[in-house]
Amino acid sequence: MNTNLYSTTVERWGLFELLLTGPSEGNPYQDVTLTAQFRHQQRVIRVDGFYDGNGTYKIRFMPDTEGRWTFEVSSSTPELQGAVGEFECTPAMAGNHGPVRVHDELHFTYEDGTVYHPFGTTCYAWTHQDQALQEETLATLQTSPFNKIRMCLFPKRYSFNSNEPDYFPFAGSKADGFDLTRFNPEYFANLEKRIVQLQELGIEADLILFHPYDTGHWGFDRMPAETDDFYLRYVIARLSAYRNVWWALANEFDFMKEKVLSDWDRFFRIVVERDPYQHLRSLHNGSSMYNPGGITYYDHTKPWVTHVSMQHWDVTLMKSWRTMYKKPIVVDECCYEGNLPQRWGNISGEEMTAKFWDCFARGGYGGHGETYMHPENIIWWARGGRLYGNCPERLAFMRKVLDDAPAHLQPQDSFRDVPTLGVEGKYYLQYYNNHRPAYRELPLPEEGCYRIEIIDTWNMTITALDGEFSGVTGIPMPGKPYMAVRVRAI
Amino acid sequence: MNTNLYSTTVERWGLFELLLTGPSEGNPYQDVTLTAQFRHQQRVIRVDGFYDGNGTYKIRFMPDTEGRWTFEVSSSTPELQGAVGEFECTPAMAGNHGPVRVHDELHFTYEDGTVYHPFGTTCYAWTHQDQALQEETLATLQTSPFNKIRMCLFPKRYSFNSNEPDYFPFAGSKADGFDLTRFNPEYFANLEKRIVQLQELGIEADLILFHPYDTGHWGFDRMPAETDDFYLRYVIARLSAYRNVWWALANEFDFMKEKVLSDWDRFFRIVVERDPYQHLRSLHNGSSMYNPGGITYYDHTKPWVTHVSMQHWDVTLMKSWRTMYKKPIVVDECCYEGNLPQRWGNISGEEMTAKFWDCFARGGYGGHGETYMHPENIIWWARGGRLYGNCPERLAFMRKVLDDAPAHLQPQDSFRDVPTLGVEGKYYLQYYNNHRPAYRELPLPEEGCYRIEIIDTWNMTITALDGEFSGVTGIPMPGKPYMAVRVRAI
Repeated sequence: MNTNLYSTTVERWGLFELLLTGPSEGNPYQDVTLTAQFRHQQRVIRVDGFYDGNGTYKIRFMPDTEGRWTFEVSSSTPELQGAVGEFECTPAMAGNHGPVRVHDELHFTYEDGTVYHPFGTTCYAWTHQDQALQEETLATLQTSPFNKIRMCLFPKRYSFNSNEPDYFPFAGSKADGFDLTRFNPEYFANLEKRIVQLQELGIEADLILFHPYDTGHWGFDRMPAETDDFYLRYVIARLSAYRNVWWALANEFDFMKEKVLSDWDRFFRIVVERDPYQHLRSLHNGSSMYNPGGITYYDHTKPWVTHVSMQHWDVTLMKSWRTMYKKPIVVDECCYEGNLPQRWGNISGEEMTAKFWDCFARGGYGGHGETYMHPENIIWWARGGRLYGNCPERLAFMRKVLDDAPAHLQPQDSFRDVPTLGVEGKYYLQYYNNHRPAYRELPLPEEGCYRIEIIDTWNMTITALDGEFSGVTGIPMPGKPYMAVRVRAI
Repeated sequence: MNTNLYSTTVERWGLFELLLTGPSEGNPYQDVTLTAQFRHQQRVIRVDGFYDGNGTYKIRFMPDTEGRWTFEVSSSTPELQGAVGEFECTPAMAGNHGPVRVHDELHFTYEDGTVYHPFGTTCYAWTHQDQALQEETLATLQTSPFNKIRMCLFPKRYSFNSNEPDYFPFAGSKADGFDLTRFNPEYFANLEKRIVQLQELGIEADLILFHPYDTGHWGFDRMPAETDDFYLRYVIARLSAYRNVWWALANEFDFMKEKVLSDWDRFFRIVVERDPYQHLRSLHNGSSMYNPGGITYYDHTKPWVTHVSMQHWDVTLMKSWRTMYKKPIVVDECCYEGNLPQRWGNISGEEMTAKFWDCFARGGYGGHGETYMHPENIIWWARGGRLYGNCPERLAFMRKVLDDAPAHLQPQDSFRDVPTLGVEGKYYLQYYNNHRPAYRELPLPEEGCYRIEIIDTWNMTITALDGEFSGVTGIPMPGKPYMAVRVRAI
């Protein structure tokens, strides 16, 4: 007889997990269907369960409404069929704001309405490193300004990162061959532990479902279509109930030469159909710096794309992207702070910081990565570990400035020449980047009275100008790069 | 009876000038036709003469071949008709390399085959200032690295530059009205004196024939079509025999809202038909930084455009322009060193210098301007005067590096990731700009033996690596911005 284990209370946007025991013979990953219907008043939400090895089956669910929920299990296996139960969804605890949603054409909010400004970093293969290094990465993240991390589900084989991981998503090994009909619960147990730890740190897990950094070594970049789909459905069943999950369908999708555009459309469709919570979905492009005409963009206007995950070194193109896609733009790769030989991995901390400010002032968001050479090749962008650069401290400062700002700032085109966000008549924030004027005129409204501050985004100082201002106002500027100006109505 | 004055010897590419006296009644600018045929062996070159006021007519000619030339004048006026004469064209003197020509899809040479790398600056209205300031500008140019200057024929009225000039191309004045059927010889005498002084300094005069910085104040931006054409023909008749003249048909042509595209086609046609020497011809675009899709480019593939005079802040687009236009690209405006409030006028000397190197390494050329605020608004870019920035010194250093290079370097795409010019197997020059690798691999040919130098383009040092190298070679790099690497076959 079946033993069903679950908790009878779950906080809102928390993880409800139903543990079932059932058959282990044959290949339950493929042979057994398992779903459940969760009900709250009139609402019914259907979710997929999954096989977790050793005769254990799990159904996970993220309730988004407080109160009593009931569930009923359906399965092709009589042992699992028909299980029922109920639980109480309690209020979200402090720090739990729910999943991140698209707010408007520019911005994100958590589902509880709290503003979410992405400050993302990149550690592609951090969960494929040894446990000590994974712990070190988490410790680094804890004191970092980051609230999003891009990370690959499949292991990564690329410059500076060719170690074989302990676990793979699929059963088997490189030496003995992989069994693409079975998954590896140990791999997922570690991944899920890390996703929860990120959640506790307030960090969104931007999960990269496919990537090209395999090139046939393990072969995960060139699986048959039915295996790709089988993998996607399993991942969604396992992970979608974690509120901090985002779906990055691929990194540098256009470098995956074994895939065609219709594959990406199909993958999006599977995610849309299978994820009951409609987590954020994006597809990240590669780029060829010396052949700008050669960048392949996915058509981000397609309705299943929630926001744009861009790779481009020239973030001044932000407005053209916004105009084209009318969705929030995150330039997840715009070159990384470091000193690698590769052009994408050797800009200064000043420039990395400037890209964040510039992206934001232009109505989008930047993305961080760090690529300093390391004697043991433990480079943050690939493997995690420690941060050595001087950008993160400035991003922490920038986050504070943004936390003080009104929600959902909009581009203010009346501030000619310098990208400016604000709330008409109330608040303006503009960023000068490499431009170093000795003075500027601010076209403040005639009605209203304003305080003006000069923000040195690099030296992390905020200097108020004496007095109160209204109308067109000339202000002295320090003639140095990396300045922002903040104007607030009194 | 007519008195014809001219010199019987003229150096190659020098200015032959025939002075004729004739009628001054009526309006000789419009009423009198005047041309001459110059002959050298079988060649016949037809040139236009012009009225210079006070009954004086002139015919100017630039001989390009040594030896005996004869001429014969034709005119609608019997007093001028039929004058004949001859002169001897002697070898060019030191420093006279003839006019600049397009060499290939990337580069320029003087007509005598000497390489010409444009190092241009911008002083739009320098010849419209008082004489002392014009002299100061020339003194500054004399010790500067510049060999080209962009300058407007019509006066300029714009931020930081609203002084009324002493002379205008047309007769009359702002107060009394301009007579658009007559020119002002005094204006042209000053202009020509300055063109000759530039020539003596080895500086090409990139003459801007039309521009929008008038907006109806004088009205030269909105003359009737026949006046535009009348003006063009007169200017060409007066100035084309100066070997250092380039025709920039307009600055920011797309900001001249009174003109349509077919006007520019017509102006090009007039210049092509009337200029016997086929000086370089270009048309410079304006730009809207925050609406990249809004930049209006003239179709530089049209056959009458000799090279591209670009305005764009992102010079990494060089390759796409080269691919599109297949003509030399000069980014005459890519922002200016200074501290003006306007975004185009407040980048650092470091960045201005970097743009020159980056343009060159990508197979094109940059352009300089300086826009530091000045208590009397004497700003180099508009009015000339003195230079205050720290870019020009670095451009002088860069010119030395280029003078040491083989002629007509070509893009070397085998040097992935870092823009590199060179001569296959012989010489490579690559530029890192803001990228700061701690090491790089150079894919040197296996055959051959090379010396490698690290060039700090900002600190103006050249450091040779010990040893001789061939094949793929790892080199240490200083991890600082603004580095170039030079490789030379031994």
